[in-house]
Amino acid sequence: MQLLKEKIRKEGKVVSNQILKVDAFLNHQIDPILMQEIGKEFAKRFRNAGITKIVTIESSGIAPAMMTALMMNVKAVFARKSKSLTLQHVYMAKVYSFTKQETNEIAIGQDHLAADDRVLIIDDFLANGQAALGLINVVEQAGATVAGIGIVIEKAFQEGGEKLRETGLHVESLAKITSLENGMVTFEEHAEVGGIKS
Amino acid sequence: MQLLKEKIRKEGKVVSNQILKVDAFLNHQIDPILMQEIGKEFAKRFRNAGITKIVTIESSGIAPAMMTALMMNVKAVFARKSKSLTLQHVYMAKVYSFTKQETNEIAIGQDHLAADDRVLIIDDFLANGQAALGLINVVEQAGATVAGIGIVIEKAFQEGGEKLRETGLHVESLAKITSLENGMVTFEEHAEVGGIKS
Repeated sequence: MQLLKEKIRKEGKVVSNQILKVDAFLNHQIDPILMQEIGKEFAKRFRNAGITKIVTIESSGIAPAMMTALMMNVKAVFARKSKSLTLQHVYMAKVYSFTKQETNEIAIGQDHLAADDRVLIIDDFLANGQAALGLINVVEQAGATVAGIGIVIEKAFQEGGEKLRETGLHVESLAKITSLENGMVTFEEHAEVGGIKS
Repeated sequence: MQLLKEKIRKEGKVVSNQILKVDAFLNHQIDPILMQEIGKEFAKRFRNAGITKIVTIESSGIAPAMMTALMMNVKAVFARKSKSLTLQHVYMAKVYSFTKQETNEIAIGQDHLAADDRVLIIDDFLANGQAALGLINVVEQAGATVAGIGIVIEKAFQEGGEKLRETGLHVESLAKITSLENGMVTFEEHAEVGGIKS
């Protein structure tokens, strides 16, 4: 997605070989116009997947998930992390964060996922895949189907993308970064036709 | 706002005299169409306030804040709570949560608030006002102006609304609940003309 890549080049900050800071438009400050375009793009890429619900995880997944939900005319639900849990009757999974070196429980209320739901999981980043795997686990506990995974920025040099695609899931990343070395963002090269990878 | 009130009556759950659960459409599952209408309504009510930025707090404020930002064509920034803080160079405040009986630090990166910003603070709930006061504190540290406060649901039987209005701030609540007694939601009665209180 060209607009997103330009935004990353212009406003992203490479902190290390592993870390890209996108606080300026994605996960602290939010550019709502960009977010709207992200929603449209996910809606386009998964238009034939029969999606009935968007699932994400607080906090940074909420903005892209909500915009995608709006464009697909379905509801979004965000998994809560343990600290904010006042929920009962939930589907729960453990998610280990390599960045924070801690395990969080994530949960979704049982009222908000049904066995006949076809779920599109949306998240801001895909790195080692732990958050996505936790969300898949939660969705499967409800007996629902994961019909796709939409990622805003994939760090393709980490193993999450491969892990998810190996399971046969349809994963779409709007920007796929192959390297952050030497303070530079390198994107995977693909011919793009109308924003969809050819 | 009529649509919101209907949604509260239909899908809200009165848990106690103090607690209304709106997990079905506002702070766990999100109804994106409702959220879009909420964004439009805030944009209308603050259209003459010269707003240049929306400020909220993770997680439940993000959806209404982003939709308001989209409708007002400005950026939104959400304050992070301490647990997720990997930010440097931040404006910070302490916020006490009566519900969770704990104090959180909230923070916004200094890059995302400027002295000439006119800020609209958006939040999902107003009860005792602690979160809003913390956000006001953060905005003022940047030298910026709080030009308004937009609340989705105000629990008018708690003291937050009065506390904020006493300071002279322009506070707008889309649904003002005067009581949750006997398991019933009672709204403040006001003649509404086109969604704006007359």
